[in-house]
Amino acid sequence: MTYCVAMRLSGGVVFASDSRTNAGVDHISTFRKLHVLHQDSERTLVLQSAGNLATTQSIINLLRLRAKDDERANLLNTTSMFDAASLIGETVREVIHRDSSAQQSGSSTDFSCNILLGGQIIGEPPRLFHIYPEGNFIEATEDTPYFQIGESKYGKPIIDRVLTYDTPLEQAMCCALISIDSTLRSNLSVGLPLDVMIYRRDSFASDEQYRITEKNPYFATIRKAWSEGLLNTFLQMPPLNLAEE
Amino acid sequence: MTYCVAMRLSGGVVFASDSRTNAGVDHISTFRKLHVLHQDSERTLVLQSAGNLATTQSIINLLRLRAKDDERANLLNTTSMFDAASLIGETVREVIHRDSSAQQSGSSTDFSCNILLGGQIIGEPPRLFHIYPEGNFIEATEDTPYFQIGESKYGKPIIDRVLTYDTPLEQAMCCALISIDSTLRSNLSVGLPLDVMIYRRDSFASDEQYRITEKNPYFATIRKAWSEGLLNTFLQMPPLNLAEE
Repeated sequence: MTYCVAMRLSGGVVFASDSRTNAGVDHISTFRKLHVLHQDSERTLVLQSAGNLATTQSIINLLRLRAKDDERANLLNTTSMFDAASLIGETVREVIHRDSSAQQSGSSTDFSCNILLGGQIIGEPPRLFHIYPEGNFIEATEDTPYFQIGESKYGKPIIDRVLTYDTPLEQAMCCALISIDSTLRSNLSVGLPLDVMIYRRDSFASDEQYRITEKNPYFATIRKAWSEGLLNTFLQMPPLNLAEE
Repeated sequence: MTYCVAMRLSGGVVFASDSRTNAGVDHISTFRKLHVLHQDSERTLVLQSAGNLATTQSIINLLRLRAKDDERANLLNTTSMFDAASLIGETVREVIHRDSSAQQSGSSTDFSCNILLGGQIIGEPPRLFHIYPEGNFIEATEDTPYFQIGESKYGKPIIDRVLTYDTPLEQAMCCALISIDSTLRSNLSVGLPLDVMIYRRDSFASDEQYRITEKNPYFATIRKAWSEGLLNTFLQMPPLNLAEE
């Protein structure tokens, strides 16, 4: 399984992904699920992927290969994030159609995948899209500033409780890390290390990328602080009194 | 959808269920999902159900009807919770087989359901079982003292963080209410009122049952206190510093 979350806020976009891939419980590996395409002072595009690993790797490879061919529309020459999302959607359809049409009858492999595309192209504000296995997509808004893909439910309540469009990027990253920690604790198929990135509005940079392992002191600190804070909050709840309605 | 949780602890068993039933988004109703069978000083059995409403109502009705027939094994004359769980499992198989075999070809109704059975029969400690749509079942242990059915993921992290086998029953109920609150906030198909019950070890009672509506002052208090406590904990997290590995 996978857990990826992206938050498009007033200050920019925050990305966090786990890196565990599994086919069953005995074929577990680490694969990067956060991919960056970057052109100085012009565009920063970040893709996160969840789903069939053959599908997502094929899509990322095709998108990167085609970005070298200036003759056709590609992720490095589109002039809007909407066009970039459309291109990715077409590639999703192409790969899933190719692989699923080669499937033997009676076999039931799931070739589908979900992709998050976030970032900024010059001339536009930062944007964030969720591209579905069918190639269609939705865009994050101020009301719903974040998207999740993969094993998203365990980590959703904390985001729903603390995140708004105006949350500072550093705090949003902290929220994303707590959200992933909640998922890690409840679901074995999501695992460390994490790949995270902060993209600051109008920076067109890609330098704030980090790989977070078990040993990262900051992640260890907030995991502990969050656990203790939650337990303290719980122990301070008023004593049970259900009858008084 | 549905969310039910039951916790079998050293002091007894705690039950909490929502009451929303939906077929699609426009046929939403309130149905009780917590059912009690009780015999003074001898047994208290509590059933919680999730899944196809026709299936679960049929199962509960058959179990109650058959409990009037002393000639055959039923929930009021079994001498162990294991036998009670087996009886429920048989009834689950009977109803699902009856309804699904009447299904027209091409139709794909899901007739399945999951049932939690908790409580105590004299001569045994309190026990808790999760009965699957196939009629087989598992039992809660000291290591894994709780079961959830229905829309369980949103409310799982808080339980995993605070509940142990020795948590007092009142605190466990508070934990269950917070777990349901987290689910209510993230999933519209889980809804108030809640039906909750505390069963105290060796009491063979059934009097601590409560229906919790939007207006319940205690529930409103802990919803607010939990939200604020969580936000405060979040705001006190140390400032982001990912680079120092």
